[in-house]
Amino acid sequence: MEMKTHTAKMLAQVRKSAPLVHNITNYVVMNSSANILLALGASPVMAHCLAEIEEMTGSVNALVLNIGTIEESWLEAMLLAGKTANKKGIPVILDPVGSGATTFRTESVRRILDECCVSVLRGNASEVFSLAGSGVKTRGVDSSLSLADAHVDAARGMAMDLGCIVAISGTADCITDGSRVFSVKNGHPLMTKVTGIGCGLSATVAAFCAVAEKDFLEATVSAFGFYGMCGGMAAKIADKPGSFEVAFIDCLYSAGESEIAEMLDISE
Amino acid sequence: MEMKTHTAKMLAQVRKSAPLVHNITNYVVMNSSANILLALGASPVMAHCLAEIEEMTGSVNALVLNIGTIEESWLEAMLLAGKTANKKGIPVILDPVGSGATTFRTESVRRILDECCVSVLRGNASEVFSLAGSGVKTRGVDSSLSLADAHVDAARGMAMDLGCIVAISGTADCITDGSRVFSVKNGHPLMTKVTGIGCGLSATVAAFCAVAEKDFLEATVSAFGFYGMCGGMAAKIADKPGSFEVAFIDCLYSAGESEIAEMLDISE
Amino acid sequence: MEMKTHTAKMLAQVRKSAPLVHNITNYVVMNSSANILLALGASPVMAHCLAEIEEMTGSVNALVLNIGTIEESWLEAMLLAGKTANKKGIPVILDPVGSGATTFRTESVRRILDECCVSVLRGNASEVFSLAGSGVKTRGVDSSLSLADAHVDAARGMAMDLGCIVAISGTADCITDGSRVFSVKNGHPLMTKVTGIGCGLSATVAAFCAVAEKDFLEATVSAFGFYGMCGGMAAKIADKPGSFEVAFIDCLYSAGESEIAEMLDISE
Repeated sequence: MEMKTHTAKMLAQVRKSAPLVHNITNYVVMNSSANILLALGASPVMAHCLAEIEEMTGSVNALVLNIGTIEESWLEAMLLAGKTANKKGIPVILDPVGSGATTFRTESVRRILDECCVSVLRGNASEVFSLAGSGVKTRGVDSSLSLADAHVDAARGMAMDLGCIVAISGTADCITDGSRVFSVKNGHPLMTKVTGIGCGLSATVAAFCAVAEKDFLEATVSAFGFYGMCGGMAAKIADKPGSFEVAFIDCLYSAGESEIAEMLDISE
Repeated sequence: MEMKTHTAKMLAQVRKSAPLVHNITNYVVMNSSANILLALGASPVMAHCLAEIEEMTGSVNALVLNIGTIEESWLEAMLLAGKTANKKGIPVILDPVGSGATTFRTESVRRILDECCVSVLRGNASEVFSLAGSGVKTRGVDSSLSLADAHVDAARGMAMDLGCIVAISGTADCITDGSRVFSVKNGHPLMTKVTGIGCGLSATVAAFCAVAEKDFLEATVSAFGFYGMCGGMAAKIADKPGSFEVAFIDCLYSAGESEIAEMLDISE
Repeated sequence: MEMKTHTAKMLAQVRKSAPLVHNITNYVVMNSSANILLALGASPVMAHCLAEIEEMTGSVNALVLNIGTIEESWLEAMLLAGKTANKKGIPVILDPVGSGATTFRTESVRRILDECCVSVLRGNASEVFSLAGSGVKTRGVDSSLSLADAHVDAARGMAMDLGCIVAISGTADCITDGSRVFSVKNGHPLMTKVTGIGCGLSATVAAFCAVAEKDFLEATVSAFGFYGMCGGMAAKIADKPGSFEVAFIDCLYSAGESEIAEMLDISE
């Protein structure tokens, strides 16, 4: 299906079915991720206590694991949630915030990738490539750069190695399952001036994957496209980060089929 | 006293005395609950460490217990805070976020209700009725529905059983102490599209109860009416959730006697 | 150097070098502190897990320790982070939120002051003076009052005793290293009606100190002046706390040399 039609259809499905998205995420963005999901039409759930993880994850439609302020007990909860989601067959989105910045973060992400089946790994280039095996070349990667061809190859290699979709945010986003590669050019630099916008994209990917029949790749691409498009729309309303964040939430709530038809910029 | 006059008087009292409201609440809404209390004219305090709970709760005017992201150590802090509040004779507002969704949540709320004297139990219908004894019928309850007569009866039964005020948010709010029953029709659907608005109402109830001489029932009804009225006012300023939240905070800060006289919609 | 010129230069340096500011702060303000730092042009990092503290603090340009929702394990992380920052020679800003309200808070701050070399102690008068030794007179101090001469003397005494800069927010801010004393008259009462504005000032001080060659006193004064000035600018755009917060973030992002030249109000 053509990606504009597909994205409009998936958005409508999110708004219609209001999927429950369970977030085990960092303290900084809990509020903004919840508001982003609500604006989209999804239903956020936050819970991290081992005593209720299996029951909670067992009742939702998608799971987000975000290591932004991780500590040991939260990692245990993430692993149990991931395994529960795997048993249930719901999508698991992993956001490796700050991976590469400390050994503890990198190793925490590796444990999740080892012990759980992750559907989508979503981060910026430096975070994602910090997880690449020794066979993947990732020199000089930065989220502020377009991914050059070498990096697209690295992302494809990682997707094949990890057996999951690798989705990298940047000036042009790169989303691949190892065979197909999509590029999303929507988005705006002000999105990097508000905390939690990247984490909110991971939550948005979860909401779209929750309503996807099976194709998580196209669901992820649609989520990136719609989210970036709303960033572009918001930047036309507000040119400073405080008012931009407000406008961005408003756009996630109000943008629909006609804006998608006009502005979505996805290529394969 | 007529409820409009009563509500205006209580609001003025909150703004004049700036009661200290101690919140042991969930991570998602800590920021928004604090801002809601500040906009109202109250003073928020957040503290959850056992080492300081008795001293902190001992110095405030009301206590909010909210289980939205509860874990074991926080439950212990809530129980100690609740007992300290009881000794001191200040109101305790319990928000059973997600009760019914997991056994751990339901049991955590039950422990608080068993071990502490709760003044007001405030939640949506599914949360509140998850706590009903076997004698109370609660089939098919959803926060998006008006409470039918059967549900008003159930709420009254719970208030009698628990010996506290039961306050249920919905299209029409229902607040009862088991004998008197109030209905509040203020409010707006956009209030369900911003995270923390429900939790902020629990904090607002705490602020109003903090300045009530003794009648926590009318204080709770006034808090519901004023809060919902501000939601309705904000929806006239902003019709999308990002800008709605901003306008709602502004209205909590600026609305007063004349708006109450014109718009408050409370019936007994 | 004249303070207006100095402040403009420091702001430009923050925007140019985007210093990494590591915050171990309270749950309430994590989101707003991150957004304040991003709006300024700095880069926020949040991490509190002992397993990664040394590596994380070792890679940043400044450290903020804020005890607003402290518990024992977080205190240990703060102490380790403070010692790591000291070894590395980066500035440490301590925000003693609620010191004086409970023994646990006061003692936690004292431990940090005893075991780490703090560059700047930033709080309101009641918080700061709760930490004064018995030789310092601090009767009747309140953040809503201008600091009278007696309080300036007390602040100077504390700065000498503690060997750090003491920076007190109030109607007129007072910043001293024990010998020089600066007064900042920028600011607006609405800044006290939004949660996290004080904590965000501590983060702003950290960003300015991160780019100061060595003079943390003038860096702190510049941070106070610029931050208060943005509060004043925002109050001209918005006169209620919800929209004020949005405007304030916008002003932190957009204000520059010409506004500083016109509005900065600093005296020594």
